[in-house]
Amino acid sequence: MDDLKQRALDYHQFPKPGKLSVESSKPCATQQDLSLAYTPGVAAPVREIAADPANAYKYTNKGNLVAVITDGTAVLGLGNVGALAGKPVMEGKAVLFKRFADIDVFDIEINAASPDEFIQTVINIAPTFGGINLEDIAAPHCFYIENTLKARLDIPVFHDDQHGTAVIVAAALLNALELQGKTLPTAKIVFLGAGAAGCSCAKLLKLMGATNITMVDRKGVLDTHRDDLHDNNRALAIEAGEVTTLADAMQGADVFIGVSAKNGLPASLVSLMAAKPVIFALANPDPEILPSEVFAVRDDVIMATGRSDFPNQVNNALCFPYLFRGALDAKAKQITEQMKVAAANALSQLAREPVPQQVLDAYGLTALSFGREYIIPKPFDPRLMAYVAGAVARAAEHAE
Amino acid sequence: MDDLKQRALDYHQFPKPGKLSVESSKPCATQQDLSLAYTPGVAAPVREIAADPANAYKYTNKGNLVAVITDGTAVLGLGNVGALAGKPVMEGKAVLFKRFADIDVFDIEINAASPDEFIQTVINIAPTFGGINLEDIAAPHCFYIENTLKARLDIPVFHDDQHGTAVIVAAALLNALELQGKTLPTAKIVFLGAGAAGCSCAKLLKLMGATNITMVDRKGVLDTHRDDLHDNNRALAIEAGEVTTLADAMQGADVFIGVSAKNGLPASLVSLMAAKPVIFALANPDPEILPSEVFAVRDDVIMATGRSDFPNQVNNALCFPYLFRGALDAKAKQITEQMKVAAANALSQLAREPVPQQVLDAYGLTALSFGREYIIPKPFDPRLMAYVAGAVARAAEHAE
Repeated sequence: MDDLKQRALDYHQFPKPGKLSVESSKPCATQQDLSLAYTPGVAAPVREIAADPANAYKYTNKGNLVAVITDGTAVLGLGNVGALAGKPVMEGKAVLFKRFADIDVFDIEINAASPDEFIQTVINIAPTFGGINLEDIAAPHCFYIENTLKARLDIPVFHDDQHGTAVIVAAALLNALELQGKTLPTAKIVFLGAGAAGCSCAKLLKLMGATNITMVDRKGVLDTHRDDLHDNNRALAIEAGEVTTLADAMQGADVFIGVSAKNGLPASLVSLMAAKPVIFALANPDPEILPSEVFAVRDDVIMATGRSDFPNQVNNALCFPYLFRGALDAKAKQITEQMKVAAANALSQLAREPVPQQVLDAYGLTALSFGREYIIPKPFDPRLMAYVAGAVARAAEHAE
Repeated sequence: MDDLKQRALDYHQFPKPGKLSVESSKPCATQQDLSLAYTPGVAAPVREIAADPANAYKYTNKGNLVAVITDGTAVLGLGNVGALAGKPVMEGKAVLFKRFADIDVFDIEINAASPDEFIQTVINIAPTFGGINLEDIAAPHCFYIENTLKARLDIPVFHDDQHGTAVIVAAALLNALELQGKTLPTAKIVFLGAGAAGCSCAKLLKLMGATNITMVDRKGVLDTHRDDLHDNNRALAIEAGEVTTLADAMQGADVFIGVSAKNGLPASLVSLMAAKPVIFALANPDPEILPSEVFAVRDDVIMATGRSDFPNQVNNALCFPYLFRGALDAKAKQITEQMKVAAANALSQLAREPVPQQVLDAYGLTALSFGREYIIPKPFDPRLMAYVAGAVARAAEHAE
């Protein structure tokens, strides 16, 4: 880990600080080039946009430009480190957007005195962008911020920590349940963690057909009788009766989805689950339970984590680049539930396809096929763009 | 002009819209690369910056990243076209920053309900950036906005329409006066136009030694008895007595500086000037008076315009890239008057040096030397970086 730390610091510092560079995408070598890029030529596109704002998509980078915006209140697992300290993560997100979907990103770190001031700031700078990716904003403010921005802006707004995770979890779960001979509508699903990611996952699964979801947070099961729930949690609370603890909830569960913290799931509770269960332990970098701990207890489990050194990595890079690519290509005014479902289904479908040699080579593998150790596509699969972005764009156009 | 319009629109639209691309400046081909750029590696620089904000200059692009920000209220000569329609100009500015000084720029177009809301928005996003270049903001709000931001931010803030023009005008005027055998302290200087650029030029010239400046706006000479002046104009108003019109002011003037509008200076007034005068007609794209009109009246004039098709182009690209380069390199917390003076003196000095073959080649010239048709360096002069950025950085460090 110390080695990783030093390598990461060196990577960020040398040969020059940071990870992004803004380049001219048009010729700018000669005075003639510059007379088109700047005065006097630039007056022509200015006039066209002043006459019709839609022309901004024709003559500027707006239509391929996403703002990755944070307030620094929930950066990685590090908590509220402040806007500035979030910058390396936002720059990293920009690298991923570019690498996987050729989307240009400005990372924007916002210091604001209140959620409303944060919202107003984003609205004020929004003309610049074709889409807004909110990142690492703490719950429960993140719900209010995203909902307000979605209502007030006519460009896609997406809080990746909520919905990106949800899309990939849904895709992976569809496949894991299929392999275990179960279905989403009949599966008993337990969430540990009812923050931004947990709530969004549960909602998306409900939308896709799940009917039996029990949410558990630090205080126990989200029961409708609890008086400490914010609106977003309340919508997911159930009449839980005598089921009050995680152990109660895990009795006979088909699915455990952890979006909480290290050691959240004791091995003893794994034994309580139904036959052929599914365990997604997504806390990062330390899962709620390690695969080795699970398989020491039982071997009929399909497991996923957030880590690249175990099979079935739930990695947001499988979703956000392509979701935005599809939304931007379709000139969608928002990211709809249908677009998220389309992305989840496309990811699920792609994992069931034969894996091309190119992907095997990228991961140094000799074989890989749909099964308990391969329920989600790999991030370097070049088919992701066509599969996911295409499905999202079609869903967007269908909705218009 | 129609040909230029179509070429400019094509340039902006094809092969893809806009002029900017955000690229990764670090390797991002493999999973290992991405584990440094994003999780888990990115946690290391986040922790370093959370511990000491100065580390943002070490591990992120902040120290080479300038925001070019507009509200779209005074775009080119087109007026208040709105934030979005200003985007091609701001992207163009980004192209110039990169081309000339290797500075990364995010263009930010801000829709705000008031100058105070604009200011708050800029302050809120400021953690992202190493410097702020304000652009195309109408007077008099631009003065309040710039002054407030300078006071509240600890990174350089610079309104280019004011001070960029001022620096180059000062450099060019020093050289023109030298060639005409005159000096700044004794020259009688008349400004037509008392907006953002005019006021800043006049202030810088005063700081550099000018003592006899008469400002004229649409209503005539800025006299201390006028009751329609805002604070910024009032500071430049004089006890003008019976000198009330532009014609009155031009009697015996050594220098005319026009930062106003087409046809602002009738040829008849050129005749009223002292022997060996200097005329800078900087309205763009149509100067206050054309060189042909001036030289039809008299031939002892040294003339400059804002146009590249006449000699002596006052072009902001001679200043802003290098001024920011110097400021960023010196980690200056603001752009001081001393830094502007240093830039002006460096530009003035550079024009007096022998011109290298490389510059002649860039402009298809066989010869070029200091004289009435070459009082300012050419934008593609590769020595600008060392001369101007170097001088600015030294002035910044001297001031600390």
